Amino acid sequence: MNGPLEGIKVLDLSRHLAGPFAAMTLGDLGAEVIKVEAPGIGDDTRRFPPSWNGISTYYLSTNRNKRGITLDLKAPRGQEIARMLAADADIVIENFRRGTTERFNLGYDDLNEINPRVIYVAVSAFGSDGPDRDKAGVDLLMQAATGLMSITGEHGRPPVRAGTSLIDLTAGANAVQGILAALYARERSGLGQRIEVSLLGAGVSWLTYHATAYFATGEVPERMGSSHGAVAPYGAYPTQDGYLVVAVATDALWRRFCGVLGLDDAVDDPRFASNPDRLDNRAALDALLEPVLAEKSADEWSELLSSAGVACGPVNTLDKTLTMPQVEFDELIVDLPHPKIPEFRMPGIAIKMKGTPGSIRRPPPELGEHNDEVLNELGFSAEQVAALRQDGVI
Amino acid sequence: MNGPLEGIKVLDLSRHLAGPFAAMTLGDLGAEVIKVEAPGIGDDTRRFPPSWNGISTYYLSTNRNKRGITLDLKAPRGQEIARMLAADADIVIENFRRGTTERFNLGYDDLNEINPRVIYVAVSAFGSDGPDRDKAGVDLLMQAATGLMSITGEHGRPPVRAGTSLIDLTAGANAVQGILAALYARERSGLGQRIEVSLLGAGVSWLTYHATAYFATGEVPERMGSSHGAVAPYGAYPTQDGYLVVAVATDALWRRFCGVLGLDDAVDDPRFASNPDRLDNRAALDALLEPVLAEKSADEWSELLSSAGVACGPVNTLDKTLTMPQVEFDELIVDLPHPKIPEFRMPGIAIKMKGTPGSIRRPPPELGEHNDEVLNELGFSAEQVAALRQDGVI
Repeated sequence: MNGPLEGIKVLDLSRHLAGPFAAMTLGDLGAEVIKVEAPGIGDDTRRFPPSWNGISTYYLSTNRNKRGITLDLKAPRGQEIARMLAADADIVIENFRRGTTERFNLGYDDLNEINPRVIYVAVSAFGSDGPDRDKAGVDLLMQAATGLMSITGEHGRPPVRAGTSLIDLTAGANAVQGILAALYARERSGLGQRIEVSLLGAGVSWLTYHATAYFATGEVPERMGSSHGAVAPYGAYPTQDGYLVVAVATDALWRRFCGVLGLDDAVDDPRFASNPDRLDNRAALDALLEPVLAEKSADEWSELLSSAGVACGPVNTLDKTLTMPQVEFDELIVDLPHPKIPEFRMPGIAIKMKGTPGSIRRPPPELGEHNDEVLNELGFSAEQVAALRQDGVI
Repeated sequence: MNGPLEGIKVLDLSRHLAGPFAAMTLGDLGAEVIKVEAPGIGDDTRRFPPSWNGISTYYLSTNRNKRGITLDLKAPRGQEIARMLAADADIVIENFRRGTTERFNLGYDDLNEINPRVIYVAVSAFGSDGPDRDKAGVDLLMQAATGLMSITGEHGRPPVRAGTSLIDLTAGANAVQGILAALYARERSGLGQRIEVSLLGAGVSWLTYHATAYFATGEVPERMGSSHGAVAPYGAYPTQDGYLVVAVATDALWRRFCGVLGLDDAVDDPRFASNPDRLDNRAALDALLEPVLAEKSADEWSELLSSAGVACGPVNTLDKTLTMPQVEFDELIVDLPHPKIPEFRMPGIAIKMKGTPGSIRRPPPELGEHNDEVLNELGFSAEQVAALRQDGVI
């Protein structure tokens, strides 16, 4: 068995990150995914640098477990093939601009008419209606619009982006949740449905405690770097070779922390006696800690402090993270044979289902790689496929 | 109908953020959730500041759509009641330290024996086995361990945390995906299963294109603030009243951008003629743009530049985001009657299922609020409940 979604068919009309990531997740769970791209052009991410043996690493990172075909969805014959695929699909994912799939005769109403079991997911920036419905959204703009950027960065310095495209990825995860819930509902009703997820919704729902705290207090949260409003010491400190994060949550841990650092005098210093004292004197506290922490490496401090029960760890750069023994043990990075990239590797499956584990069965397809195979399955002859190719429909 | 999971029963033994957020999402989708907390103490988040009419806003943000009971899981009678609930549950969520539920006779094997249909999700920091299996993980440490922190912050400045607890939230989303996939699989097999999700897995899987780019090039990605390695101008710029993000992706847009800013000379400046030129002369470019952008407000620039087709938007602080007309239109913030907080509001449901929409039916429970109700449903008499209370079991 390939996973819990074995036998489920996904038509992935989406581009960029949120939709493709959602479709890939369904593929990891065992679904058969067909990714549709524009002939000769393909997903914009195919042109995002850097490349690996000529293939974009961005594209590679979110398109495994899919077969790839090309279809000109502006052409009636391209639309007709897409409708044939949708007629047999359990799930359709799209993130075109509002109104596009309707123009292609591939909107939810069109597809529901030929396949009432279809689960149709539209991913958009701001939602399908409302004042901002036609605004485009890239991750940077959406981290800004949703307020996440306003709370990421150092105090008194400019806002920064979270280093990964978390709004897109969250929207993709929301799409997967909606799809899986709709599959379960369909077991009862026999019917599919339309689902909408937006980048705006993804960002706002992840404000969680920041939103409720703001409603309660009226205080607009500010950027805090890596520090904490109510605990000190807390955050990232430079060491001999990189940054170390520490979280000294109690006075007992503070005493142990000082013991490891050899700062026995600090324990009795009234400026640092309790957590409120340490918060009040944070600048003096940091000035005391920084030269000491600079004397050893992040790994050395991490081992010494962990042994003393202090929560801490190195701020891993990606080379460190991706080679952690635990990452290997958990199969969070996997080798995946690729015809053009013998040494291809990428993040693995993070959801470990012990009864029906997911599986990685296919490398990301090249543009139109499965045109012949998929069209033959739909009943097109080799000659018909050649004509479609000749006419630029595929 | 309350949503696609109507009739599904969830036993939420989890604390803090990842597990409770996952259980709340299932509740939003229509499931009946019972949250179990330690008598007299409850979820640690109940003590996280700030509070709203005496109740923690952190706790409030992730516990709606649940009934709340207290159970001393170290006491045999507490364990027995938990087993009675698990015998009838579809889903059990826990994020105790490794081995804890087994000690409580509530491990997967224990529960599977009395309820082979149970879907059991263990949320941990690093996974259930492997070299780091016993390490604790809070969001700060996991943002550091997974490398996300190393790529968040300004170039040449310290790493910072993404402003929200994205590792916890991602792990919660992964738990929901695993649960929903397992519910679907159970329709076929009749059997539940054990699922594991980790904070490490959540973070590593969200490295996506950063991981593949690193494997391809060997180059360790660095912090870039809000800028882009391959596009300029791109990022956050200060205006009269706050920051504005702009993404000027093409030379045609650069000319329009200069037109709006009144920088007609810049268009012909050879330092800024093409995107590679602008990347090479980024410091001079920013020096040119900053005084001009400081002359108007972020909203004014946003309107002018948007009209010219330039992707841009204000860096909203939370007060701005949470009052956006589009946020209201999409019901991304909802009023939810709470007996002690008449004006209670929180983020709404981001996944819009048009056929089986989710619903918000209950405010976050007070500690032990539903003890009598739930125990009566299990067949305990009022006298028996009183005895359990007397003995500190609930």
